[in-house]
Amino acid sequence: MDTGDTAWVLISAALVLLMTPGLAFFYGGMVRSKSVLNMMMMSLGAMAVVGVLWVLFGYSTAFGADVGAGLLGKPFEFFGLSGLLAPESLALPAKIPSTVFVAFQAMFAIITVALISGAIADRARFGPWLLFAGLWATVVYFPVAHWVFDFDGKDEAGNVVDPGGWIANKLLAIDFAGGTAVHINAGAAGLALALVLGKRVGWPKEPMKPHSLPLVVLGAGLLWFGWFGFNAGSALGANATAGVTFINTLVATCAAMLGWMLTERIRDGKATTLGAASGVIAGLVAITPACSSVTPIGAIAIGAITGVLCALAVSLKYRLGFDDSLDVVGVHLVGGLSGTILIGLFASDAAPAKINGLFYGGGVDQLWRQAVGAFAVLAYSFVLSLLLGYLVKFTVGFRASEEAEVASIDEAEHAERAYEYGSLTSARGTGKASVAAGATAVLEGSNKK
Amino acid sequence: MDTGDTAWVLISAALVLLMTPGLAFFYGGMVRSKSVLNMMMMSLGAMAVVGVLWVLFGYSTAFGADVGAGLLGKPFEFFGLSGLLAPESLALPAKIPSTVFVAFQAMFAIITVALISGAIADRARFGPWLLFAGLWATVVYFPVAHWVFDFDGKDEAGNVVDPGGWIANKLLAIDFAGGTAVHINAGAAGLALALVLGKRVGWPKEPMKPHSLPLVVLGAGLLWFGWFGFNAGSALGANATAGVTFINTLVATCAAMLGWMLTERIRDGKATTLGAASGVIAGLVAITPACSSVTPIGAIAIGAITGVLCALAVSLKYRLGFDDSLDVVGVHLVGGLSGTILIGLFASDAAPAKINGLFYGGGVDQLWRQAVGAFAVLAYSFVLSLLLGYLVKFTVGFRASEEAEVASIDEAEHAERAYEYGSLTSARGTGKASVAAGATAVLEGSNKK
Amino acid sequence: MDTGDTAWVLISAALVLLMTPGLAFFYGGMVRSKSVLNMMMMSLGAMAVVGVLWVLFGYSTAFGADVGAGLLGKPFEFFGLSGLLAPESLALPAKIPSTVFVAFQAMFAIITVALISGAIADRARFGPWLLFAGLWATVVYFPVAHWVFDFDGKDEAGNVVDPGGWIANKLLAIDFAGGTAVHINAGAAGLALALVLGKRVGWPKEPMKPHSLPLVVLGAGLLWFGWFGFNAGSALGANATAGVTFINTLVATCAAMLGWMLTERIRDGKATTLGAASGVIAGLVAITPACSSVTPIGAIAIGAITGVLCALAVSLKYRLGFDDSLDVVGVHLVGGLSGTILIGLFASDAAPAKINGLFYGGGVDQLWRQAVGAFAVLAYSFVLSLLLGYLVKFTVGFRASEEAEVASIDEAEHAERAYEYGSLTSARGTGKASVAAGATAVLEGSNKK
Repeated sequence: MDTGDTAWVLISAALVLLMTPGLAFFYGGMVRSKSVLNMMMMSLGAMAVVGVLWVLFGYSTAFGADVGAGLLGKPFEFFGLSGLLAPESLALPAKIPSTVFVAFQAMFAIITVALISGAIADRARFGPWLLFAGLWATVVYFPVAHWVFDFDGKDEAGNVVDPGGWIANKLLAIDFAGGTAVHINAGAAGLALALVLGKRVGWPKEPMKPHSLPLVVLGAGLLWFGWFGFNAGSALGANATAGVTFINTLVATCAAMLGWMLTERIRDGKATTLGAASGVIAGLVAITPACSSVTPIGAIAIGAITGVLCALAVSLKYRLGFDDSLDVVGVHLVGGLSGTILIGLFASDAAPAKINGLFYGGGVDQLWRQAVGAFAVLAYSFVLSLLLGYLVKFTVGFRASEEAEVASIDEAEHAERAYEYGSLTSARGTGKASVAAGATAVLEGSNKK
Repeated sequence: MDTGDTAWVLISAALVLLMTPGLAFFYGGMVRSKSVLNMMMMSLGAMAVVGVLWVLFGYSTAFGADVGAGLLGKPFEFFGLSGLLAPESLALPAKIPSTVFVAFQAMFAIITVALISGAIADRARFGPWLLFAGLWATVVYFPVAHWVFDFDGKDEAGNVVDPGGWIANKLLAIDFAGGTAVHINAGAAGLALALVLGKRVGWPKEPMKPHSLPLVVLGAGLLWFGWFGFNAGSALGANATAGVTFINTLVATCAAMLGWMLTERIRDGKATTLGAASGVIAGLVAITPACSSVTPIGAIAIGAITGVLCALAVSLKYRLGFDDSLDVVGVHLVGGLSGTILIGLFASDAAPAKINGLFYGGGVDQLWRQAVGAFAVLAYSFVLSLLLGYLVKFTVGFRASEEAEVASIDEAEHAERAYEYGSLTSARGTGKASVAAGATAVLEGSNKK
Repeated sequence: MDTGDTAWVLISAALVLLMTPGLAFFYGGMVRSKSVLNMMMMSLGAMAVVGVLWVLFGYSTAFGADVGAGLLGKPFEFFGLSGLLAPESLALPAKIPSTVFVAFQAMFAIITVALISGAIADRARFGPWLLFAGLWATVVYFPVAHWVFDFDGKDEAGNVVDPGGWIANKLLAIDFAGGTAVHINAGAAGLALALVLGKRVGWPKEPMKPHSLPLVVLGAGLLWFGWFGFNAGSALGANATAGVTFINTLVATCAAMLGWMLTERIRDGKATTLGAASGVIAGLVAITPACSSVTPIGAIAIGAITGVLCALAVSLKYRLGFDDSLDVVGVHLVGGLSGTILIGLFASDAAPAKINGLFYGGGVDQLWRQAVGAFAVLAYSFVLSLLLGYLVKFTVGFRASEEAEVASIDEAEHAERAYEYGSLTSARGTGKASVAAGATAVLEGSNKK
């Protein structure tokens, strides 16, 4: 065991945990004030459900002994993490305790599920969402994590003694930190659920502006911060690979922000805060699979391209008519595809993965591997998510009533309102009342008339 | 010295520092908009006062040479941390520099004091609170930290050469990261202060809803994030114990959230955001003492039990008639007792502490040790807090005037309002005014009539 | 390479990255609701531009081979970080990979630029700001970072083989983490830009209160948290120096908060939240250069003195008539000067830097070195910033139109509003409408009349 590597993966796990509350703010700020709680609760609920399932059988399904063909681990091999708690249990070849790896990977499972919820903002019932979250984690995420993240275990002679997932070991697609397993996966599921639940009342005619852009920026900031754990933590050690992935995670994001803002500037005349925050996420998504296989110049290219691409892609839903409310498809599916496939072009053997893509003389070999991996996850996730979505819809029901949706899903599902600023009533009539007092004062005044 | 261990405790200290601003938001979001600043200032003020005292004499009182019977360290042994700055000064047996341990423990002192403030929301004067904070840290926290966290120093032959606190070394109760020293301690003090200050005007008849649930969720998210430093950092190294405590801190919290939400669902029909956020804290409190002595399955059990227990306990104040405004008793005292005592049932020698509780064949030996430790801290803290509370009350006065409380404690104590959204006046009458403009516009309109 | 050192600098880099969104909230909360987005976008935009420039040529300009006299590194030596990605490339004498050092220092460049923006709140156009940010980073920050942070590289015999910057190696002023290069630098630039852009419409007559103090506290909290990476991360390893700088960063900040609050209490009768949050920043600024050269008692002194000093300094702008909107001068320039110069008094050889200041028997030798370093950076930054500011002003124009400024710079520059709380319209007339609903309801009611 190496204490430095362990320290880095421990803090990385905490960073990735923080990303899910970060996502709750990113998504929560984008919805209207009447549905921010329901939006945040979908992230919190995903944490609750997936965290427990991960310990029970999720980790085993993803990282247990392969049941055959690289599709799945034995679901109950480490039930409740038994056998992994002893000090000598290491997550080899990483020099960290097994439980540290378990914790790090738990956070990936949680946030992948939470990401989906942005596609069905403002209209999903909470209980059915929890049910879907548990089912989807079990049937989609845990196996796909096995495909992508479970590398073959080898003995000292290099023989495979513990075979892992098919994408990581047979297809040999590069996905350093989850472009396929996390972002394409969640993006495809988001598309499926947007179709299952249908459009919001009033969409796309009614304007549905973000109710709090500072909350969106808070979310983006926490996500960026946490993403260093997500990407550089995936080096599973404090080493040069962590360093390269870290700087790539910085600079691709900067470039994507510039790309998105420039697209807006040219198209609409003005760069928006929502665009900058979305550019941050798009860049982070794109560099996630690629951060170990490109140079910083490649990272800038991938970031800039994806920033432009996603800025254009988010308007697709209006043309195609599906209400992916917070652009899970436009950012995570498109950004995930972009980052995963551009590896085939920009991979450079100066980077830790030591592979050359098309632009660096490596031919198309890596490109098709990337494409196959990306579309395999896309297809699996989309089909299974549709099935699970309909299963929930036609058993317990998935969507809130139209009345609840129009009035306030927060009140209907959680019996709460996000903001109760009106309690400063005592200041009424003093002439120096701020908005909170003012609004209440006037409201009460109206009622008296 | 081990650099990996040092890196982990350094970042853990920063994580625990962040918990106090996190608490400021968690508490601040729960109060009404007219008292959010005073609420947050109690946390900030605790940071200012306790941070300085810790360096002057707090650390010495907690970790200096025992003055006898395990009750107290010599208060001025390391005045100003002199003697601890040299590179060769280590916090043995941990392989980290002394100052790193000092910094890590400083954050525990700060947050414990800040936790108390939730019990006296909306009605405490700021100066007297600072006075209480300093007194309470000195008379209650620093000694109790000695009892619980100061382990005997031993020479190579295993002889005690530097005796520590009585709970850690004589009673041998398990409190890995502060179920007694932090949560029961703060919870009992909160109860005492709620009694000393009395009920808020209008309580319990007037509804006193959280003014911003997104702020509450932000607080809960930062607290959870920081708590990984609190619990897993208490391993004082990047090792397998840190790994087990980390995963337990995740999964107990998930289970507690589920427990709290389920209790609400059954009792009230709906799971609330406030409940989910409170469940997060309850789970974190409960697993704090227990994270090193239970398996992940035990952690799920402790989390779920405590989530249900605290969800029920927060209504006690209405029946018993004390205004513990933000449920310091219901969450921290009850959760701390739950976690501390359940160790006696769920401890398993598969976990790092290598102790078996009642359910794992260990009999009741550990159970009574846990109970004695818990109630000793409860009693000491409650009695001393009452005395200190009355001392402040009857000398400088503790509570704001009724007028100030009803109008706005923020204006009375800090001459500020939390929110001044009403400045967007220029948009008045444009027909696309948002609420900020709208409210002001109407208010001004009313005034003109 | 040392994995523990690497882990600490990796997480420190992430912590410093988080400071810039933290700054966006700190600044964003202080402006009026009609300009919060533009304020935050200046921070986000600085991230985007400076992050990319850093990788292209910024790092080389700061840390490349000296072109002569310690003024500048070769700007394209490591263009795109080529030559730094290999696993064996270390940032000697630190035992960390080169890319980790590059990433850590990138965050310093970003936040220094972002800090400036507080001086020109509410009135700067976004595009010209991005242009200024890129120019200023190139012409001011990258060279100054070379002066202060690029230490001579030596061979094993101690001969200088890779000469660095003049302040670090010739003047021998102590600036551990950026009192000169970051805070004096940004503060002087802020003063220059405040003069270039001129006063806001209505300043200083119109009250311009912070629109959201909770947002200010959030910013201060994240900044404090991140600052542990900023200061203790500058040890470039997880060691005793990191420990001392860490505890000094804690306690100086506590003392500065007390100093600021006490000044307000005496002068105005009440300690404010804005004061406490500003005190936090003032303390952090002051201890930044000093954290490695003073004892914790010295840190308390520097913090307390600077807290008082900055609390007094922020009113200077009213007397001198420059609209440094968010007190970049009063906090960063004054606090940076205070911390940098007080090293000359409070430095103690008990601290890692092993230098004695005037009060510890070291005479005035260090004092004048500190003063020369401080004023050299001040003068260079002020003059160049004036020139660059006027360059931007007289080419593309820097300031928004008066109409845009009065109406809302957010709408004029970004076509957005920060808050759209008014969408809860469906609750209208139910009698339990909260402010969001109420305000809109009444506004619409008014319009109907």
